[in-house]
Amino acid sequence: MGNDEIIALRRRLHAIPGLGFDLDETVKIVEEYLGGLGIAGRTFGRSGIGAVIEGRGPGRTVLLRADMDGLPIEEETGHPWKSEKPGVMHACGHDVHTACLLGAAKKLSASRGDFAGRVLLVFQPAEETTGGALPMIEDGLFEMASPDGAFALHCDPSIRSGAVGVHRGPARAAADMFDCVIKGRGAHGAEPHRGDDVIAIACRTVSALHELVGRVVPPAEPAVLSVGTLSAGTARNVLPDRAEFSGIFRTVTEETRLSLRAKIRRTVMNIPDVLGAVGEIQFTEGYPALANDPEMADLVMAAAERILGEGSVTVLTAPSMGVDDFSWFLRSAPGCYFFLGTGRGTDDAPLHSPRFDPDEGCLEAGVSVLAEAALAFLGGDYQK
Amino acid sequence: MGNDEIIALRRRLHAIPGLGFDLDETVKIVEEYLGGLGIAGRTFGRSGIGAVIEGRGPGRTVLLRADMDGLPIEEETGHPWKSEKPGVMHACGHDVHTACLLGAAKKLSASRGDFAGRVLLVFQPAEETTGGALPMIEDGLFEMASPDGAFALHCDPSIRSGAVGVHRGPARAAADMFDCVIKGRGAHGAEPHRGDDVIAIACRTVSALHELVGRVVPPAEPAVLSVGTLSAGTARNVLPDRAEFSGIFRTVTEETRLSLRAKIRRTVMNIPDVLGAVGEIQFTEGYPALANDPEMADLVMAAAERILGEGSVTVLTAPSMGVDDFSWFLRSAPGCYFFLGTGRGTDDAPLHSPRFDPDEGCLEAGVSVLAEAALAFLGGDYQK
Amino acid sequence: MGNDEIIALRRRLHAIPGLGFDLDETVKIVEEYLGGLGIAGRTFGRSGIGAVIEGRGPGRTVLLRADMDGLPIEEETGHPWKSEKPGVMHACGHDVHTACLLGAAKKLSASRGDFAGRVLLVFQPAEETTGGALPMIEDGLFEMASPDGAFALHCDPSIRSGAVGVHRGPARAAADMFDCVIKGRGAHGAEPHRGDDVIAIACRTVSALHELVGRVVPPAEPAVLSVGTLSAGTARNVLPDRAEFSGIFRTVTEETRLSLRAKIRRTVMNIPDVLGAVGEIQFTEGYPALANDPEMADLVMAAAERILGEGSVTVLTAPSMGVDDFSWFLRSAPGCYFFLGTGRGTDDAPLHSPRFDPDEGCLEAGVSVLAEAALAFLGGDYQK
Amino acid sequence: MGNDEIIALRRRLHAIPGLGFDLDETVKIVEEYLGGLGIAGRTFGRSGIGAVIEGRGPGRTVLLRADMDGLPIEEETGHPWKSEKPGVMHACGHDVHTACLLGAAKKLSASRGDFAGRVLLVFQPAEETTGGALPMIEDGLFEMASPDGAFALHCDPSIRSGAVGVHRGPARAAADMFDCVIKGRGAHGAEPHRGDDVIAIACRTVSALHELVGRVVPPAEPAVLSVGTLSAGTARNVLPDRAEFSGIFRTVTEETRLSLRAKIRRTVMNIPDVLGAVGEIQFTEGYPALANDPEMADLVMAAAERILGEGSVTVLTAPSMGVDDFSWFLRSAPGCYFFLGTGRGTDDAPLHSPRFDPDEGCLEAGVSVLAEAALAFLGGDYQK
Repeated sequence: MGNDEIIALRRRLHAIPGLGFDLDETVKIVEEYLGGLGIAGRTFGRSGIGAVIEGRGPGRTVLLRADMDGLPIEEETGHPWKSEKPGVMHACGHDVHTACLLGAAKKLSASRGDFAGRVLLVFQPAEETTGGALPMIEDGLFEMASPDGAFALHCDPSIRSGAVGVHRGPARAAADMFDCVIKGRGAHGAEPHRGDDVIAIACRTVSALHELVGRVVPPAEPAVLSVGTLSAGTARNVLPDRAEFSGIFRTVTEETRLSLRAKIRRTVMNIPDVLGAVGEIQFTEGYPALANDPEMADLVMAAAERILGEGSVTVLTAPSMGVDDFSWFLRSAPGCYFFLGTGRGTDDAPLHSPRFDPDEGCLEAGVSVLAEAALAFLGGDYQK
Repeated sequence: MGNDEIIALRRRLHAIPGLGFDLDETVKIVEEYLGGLGIAGRTFGRSGIGAVIEGRGPGRTVLLRADMDGLPIEEETGHPWKSEKPGVMHACGHDVHTACLLGAAKKLSASRGDFAGRVLLVFQPAEETTGGALPMIEDGLFEMASPDGAFALHCDPSIRSGAVGVHRGPARAAADMFDCVIKGRGAHGAEPHRGDDVIAIACRTVSALHELVGRVVPPAEPAVLSVGTLSAGTARNVLPDRAEFSGIFRTVTEETRLSLRAKIRRTVMNIPDVLGAVGEIQFTEGYPALANDPEMADLVMAAAERILGEGSVTVLTAPSMGVDDFSWFLRSAPGCYFFLGTGRGTDDAPLHSPRFDPDEGCLEAGVSVLAEAALAFLGGDYQK
Repeated sequence: MGNDEIIALRRRLHAIPGLGFDLDETVKIVEEYLGGLGIAGRTFGRSGIGAVIEGRGPGRTVLLRADMDGLPIEEETGHPWKSEKPGVMHACGHDVHTACLLGAAKKLSASRGDFAGRVLLVFQPAEETTGGALPMIEDGLFEMASPDGAFALHCDPSIRSGAVGVHRGPARAAADMFDCVIKGRGAHGAEPHRGDDVIAIACRTVSALHELVGRVVPPAEPAVLSVGTLSAGTARNVLPDRAEFSGIFRTVTEETRLSLRAKIRRTVMNIPDVLGAVGEIQFTEGYPALANDPEMADLVMAAAERILGEGSVTVLTAPSMGVDDFSWFLRSAPGCYFFLGTGRGTDDAPLHSPRFDPDEGCLEAGVSVLAEAALAFLGGDYQK
Repeated sequence: MGNDEIIALRRRLHAIPGLGFDLDETVKIVEEYLGGLGIAGRTFGRSGIGAVIEGRGPGRTVLLRADMDGLPIEEETGHPWKSEKPGVMHACGHDVHTACLLGAAKKLSASRGDFAGRVLLVFQPAEETTGGALPMIEDGLFEMASPDGAFALHCDPSIRSGAVGVHRGPARAAADMFDCVIKGRGAHGAEPHRGDDVIAIACRTVSALHELVGRVVPPAEPAVLSVGTLSAGTARNVLPDRAEFSGIFRTVTEETRLSLRAKIRRTVMNIPDVLGAVGEIQFTEGYPALANDPEMADLVMAAAERILGEGSVTVLTAPSMGVDDFSWFLRSAPGCYFFLGTGRGTDDAPLHSPRFDPDEGCLEAGVSVLAEAALAFLGGDYQK
C-alpha cells in the first residue's frame, strides 16, 4: 500500500465521521475496501465488521482491531478534508486506526502465502460511548475465528510520529460507575432533630469516599474516584428526604477494583446508618481494565524497532486512567495495545480537541507495525 | 361580644382564607366589622389595616396585632365551616387571631370612656410568606399612632384551651438565609488533578457549617443551622465547575446572630481556598428575633390570671425556633407575644396540619386577655 | 443570727478550705456549731453530716443542703481571712453555702415550736469532684428522715447581692462522659493500604460526633458535646494500630440524654467499620440533670420576695451546662435549687476565679430565704 | 572471586551488623578486604568509605555504591552465621550489598588493565536512619573522583535469585515530613464557645489532608500522605489550647512534591483560621526521589542479560514508595539503582522481617552484574 493511498483513505474516513453505532458511511468504506481485497466482511452486532484473512495453512489466529466512531465535537482544523458533518469529528483518531487496519489488511492479504494461521480483522463501533466490542463478541464474532493473540493501536500526539509507546502491563483503567441515594425523614430546617438531614449525611459520605483511594489503594497503583453529581433539596429552609449523588472509580487491577468497590459500598451503607437514614448504591460496570501481556508487548516492541528503527520505541510505565473496550478482546487472548505516535513535536493538540491533527506520516508506521506484529505472532515469536 | 358572635365571626374568616397579600375577602370582613364599631380602618402596604380607638384623653398608645393570612394546605377537618378555597386553609390559626382582635376591638371600643390614651389595631398580611409587618411600618403605620407597648397572641394546640403560655424573654428566633456558590475549574472525573473538584469542596464546607453551632454558640442558647439545598454536576464522570448550596440559620440573640454569620462567611470563603476554588456567599435577612419584655410578660400573665383564673398561665422557657414578624413592631416598643391555648388535651393536630382544629373556647379567652392587657398597659401597670 | 455572726462564721470556713472528702476542719466547725444549737449531727459517707431539727409535731420533712468542699486554686483576694491552705480556696462559694445553712439551722431551731414536721440539714462533701451526695444517700441518710421537699442555694456573682435567680424547670445539666478506642492494623505510613489508618478514622469519627448535637437535639434544648483528648501514634511515618479519644456530653432532659448517647455509640461503632477497623466506647455517668419543680420554684420566689422585697427575684430561663449533685436529692423529692446573688455589680470575679469574692451582704439573704422557704413548705405552701 | 569466598564474606558481615553510623566492625572488614586488593579506602563523614580503582588510562568515572547498616531487629533465622548482636540484624540485605560491591571491586581490580577511567567505590552508613550519603558528599567524596555515572543494587526477595528488576524511570519516592500545631483558646468542655476547640479543628484538618492526594495528584502518579501522630488534651472535660500532629508525604516527581507541599501548607493554615485558631506547619525534607536514567537502566538490563541469560530481567513499572538516599548520588550523575533477586520462589520472608533470608546464589549474580555494568559504562555503552 502506498503512502498516498493510505493518506487518501484516512482523509475519506475523516470527512464522514459517525457517532456510536451510527456509522453507515464508515462501514460502507470499510466493506468496499475489504471487498476490493477479496475479503468478505460480516456484520456483528450493530455496525461491527469481522473479516478473516486465511494464511497458507493451519496455525494460530491473530486478532487486529480498529475502532471506527467519532466524537460530538465541531472540528476546527480547517483542513480541506475536515469533517463534513456539523458537530461530529474524528477527534480521537479512530479514522487513523481504521485506515491503518485496512492498510495492514492489504499487506497481510498480499502475503497470505507466507504465513500459517489466520488474521481476524475487527472493525468495531461505539468505543467512545457504551462499547461496541462486547456486542460483537456476544453476536458470535469468535465463532468466525477464535483468537490466540490480539493487537490494536491508538493515536498519541504526545509521541512523535514514526515512533510508538508500549506498556508492558496495565495500559488503561477499568471504569466503574455508581449511583447513590440517601433516604431519610425530611423536616423543617429549624427542626433538624425531627428528620435525618440527608444533606449532612450525603456530604459526610462523599468526603469519606474521597478519602478511600488514598487509604486503601497501594500508593504506586493508579486509581481514581470522583463524584460528578450531587443533588438534594429545593428550598433553603426544608431538609429534604432524599439526596442523590453519582460518580466513577477507575482501577488497573481486578483485586483493587473489587476491594475499592466493597469499601465504597460499605461507606454508603454505614455512614447514613449512624443517623438512622438509609444509603443505597447501584454499581454499573464499564470497560474492564486493559493490561498488555508483557511478552506480547516485547513482541510489538521488537516488531516496531525492526520497522521504525532503533530508538523508535518507548516503554510506557504509568497506565492511563482512560479506558478502551479493546480490553474485552484481551479477556479471550493475550495481546498488546500500543500507542502510535502522531505528534510533530510542537503545538500538538491533544486527543478530543477540536484541533486534533495527527501527522499523516504516522499512517504508514501504523500499517507496518500492525502487520509486522501479526506476522511475528503467527510466525511463533510469542510462545507461552 | 357574645361567645356565639365571636365563634361565628371566626368561622366566616375560616371559610375564606387567603395567601400572603391576597386577602381581599378577609380584609373586607375586617373593615366591615370595624366599620360596624364606628372605627375607620386605613390601608397600609398591600392588604394591611391600621385603625385607632381613641380613649377618653391623652395617654399612651398600645398596639394590638393580628395576622390574617392562611397557608397553601388542603383542609381535612370536615367541618361545615371548612375552607371554601381549594388548597388554602387557616392551618396556623390566623383566623382565630383576627377574630380575637376584632372581639377585643369591640370590647375596648365599648369602654373607650374608661381609659386614657389609645389602641392601635393592626391587621397584617403575609406573616407566613415574605412578611407583612415591615411594609405596613414603611408605609406610615406609626404616623397614625406611635406605639408605647405592643401585644399579640398566637394559637398553640399544645396548651389547653382557656390557658396561655408566656415567655419572659426570647420567644421566637431571628431567621437568616444564605446562598453559596463554589466555583472552580471543571475536569474529567478521571483527572481530578486538572480541576478543583467543587463537589468535594462543597461537601467539606457543608460539614464544617454543620459543626459550627455546636462549637461557637453557647450551649444553652437556642440556635440552628441547616442546609436545605445542594446541587452540582450533571454527569457521573465530569467534575463540574460550580456547586451551589443554600440554607438557614436561626438565633435568639443579636450577638450570636452576628458571630455565627461571621463564622459562616469565613467557612465558605476559607475552605474552598485550600484547593484553589472560590467560595461566594450571599446572606438574606428574614424576620428579626422576637423577645418579650419581661415586665410586659408579667403584665400579660397577671392579666391572664385575672381573666382565666389561677393556674391558667404557664411561663415558657425554651424559645421556639419558628419566626414571626411581630418582632418588627417590638423594635419600636416593648411588648409581649403570648401563646393562646387552643388544645382539647387529646389528639390535637399541630399547627400547619390539614387537621388543625382549635377548640373554639379559646376565642373568648383570647379576646378578653388581649383587651385586659391593653387596659392594664394603658392604666399604667407597666412602668419603665 | 446577727449579720456579724454569720459573716464571722463564713470567714472562719473560708480560711480553712478542704478538697473533695478531705474536710476535717470544716466538718469540725459545722459539728461544733450544730452542737451549740443542740442539734446532733451524724456522719454519712465520708465527711458528710446529716442532722434533724424536729418541729412541734408530725408533718412533712424538708431537706436543706449545703456543699462544703473547696477548689485546688491559689487564692488571690488578699483578704485578711483568705485561705490559709496553699493551693486550696473556696472559689465556688461553698463556704457561703455552709454558713447560710448553719444560719438557717439557727433560725429554724429557734422557731421549732412554730412549725410541724422537721428539717433535714445536709452538709455534703465532694460536690466539685466525684460527688458526695450519692454516698450519703447510700449510707442511709434518708433513714434519718425521708424528705418530702428539698432546697439548696448556690452563689452567683452575676446576680446582685440581695437578690436571687430561680429556674422554673431545668437548672443544670446531666453530665456523661465517654472513652473511645479505635483499633485497627498498623502499617508503614508509605503503605496505608496494608493497615486501617486509625488516625484517619478517629478524625472522621470525632468530626461526626461534633455534628451530632446540631442535628439530633431540639435547637432550643441546651446540650453540648466536646472531645477533650485525642491521642494516637508515636512516629511520623508509622500508622499506629490504636487511637484513643474521650469527651463529655451534657443534656437537660433524659430523653435527649438517651437518644444522644445512642447516636454517639452508633457513630463510634459504624464509622470505623467502614474501613475494617473496630470502634469501642465506654460511657461513664456523672451527675443527673438538675430540674426544679415549677411549684417549688414558685414557693422559693414568693419566699424571696417576702424577705428581699419586690424586684429581688429573677426567673432564669437558660439552664447552665454546669452540674451539681444536689440532683441526687431531687430524685427523691421535688425541690428547688436557686441562685443567691453575690455580686456588687461591677468587676465581680466569676466562680472558680482566684479572685472570687462574694459581697458578704448575701449571707443574711441566703440564711433568711432558706429558712423562709423551709417554713413555707412545712406550712403547706406547696401542695401536689 | 569464587562463589564460596563471596558467601563466606557475606556471612562474616551478616554476623556483626551495626546500626546507623555505628559500623566499626563492618568498616574494618571492608577496609581489610580492600587493603588485600591493594585498594586504599578513605573515610568520608563518619563510617563512610570511598576508594578508587584506577583503570589503564584517562576516562570516565563510574560510582558503585553499597550501604552497610543493619536494623534494630532480633534475628530469627536460626542460621549458624546469624547475627551475634542481640537486637540488631541485617534484615534489609545491606550485608549482601556490601559483599557484592567488595566482590565487584575484586573483579574490577583484577581487570584494571582492560578499562579506561576509574571506579569510585562507595560504602555508606546510615541508609536506614538519617542518611549517610549526603554527609559523605559534603565531606569531599567527589573530590576523590567526580562520577559520570552511578550504579547500586538492592535485594528484593519478590524476584527470584539469579534475576534482576529494573525501573526505567522513577524507582523510589521522595520523602518529606511535616509537623503541625493547632493553637487556640482552651475552654471548659461544657463551654466550647469560649474557646477554639483545636481538637475539632485538628480532626477536620487531618481529614482534609487525607483527601488531598486523591484530588491533586495525577491518578497514575504514585504518591502517598499519612498522618502518623495526633495528640491533644489531657482531660475529658477540658478543651485544650494546643493540638499536634505529624506525618509524611512521598512523591516521585518534583512538580507533584512541590504542589502537594503547597496544598498541605494551605490546608493547615486555612482551616484553623475558620474558627479563629492558628495552624502552624514545619516541613522536613528527607531523601530526594530516586529516578533511574532510562538509558542507564537499559545499560544495566543489557549487562544483566549478558551475565544472567535471557529472561533474567524484569522491567519494573510501579515505583516503590520506599526511599533510598542513593538518590543523593544521582543528583550528580545519571545512574541506575536495580533490584537483585534474592528469592527462592516460596515462603520468602520480606525485607525488614526477622526471618529475611536471601538465597546466597544472588551474591555471584550481584557481583557480576555490578562489574559488567561498570565496565559497559566505562566502555562507552552509555552516550548522552
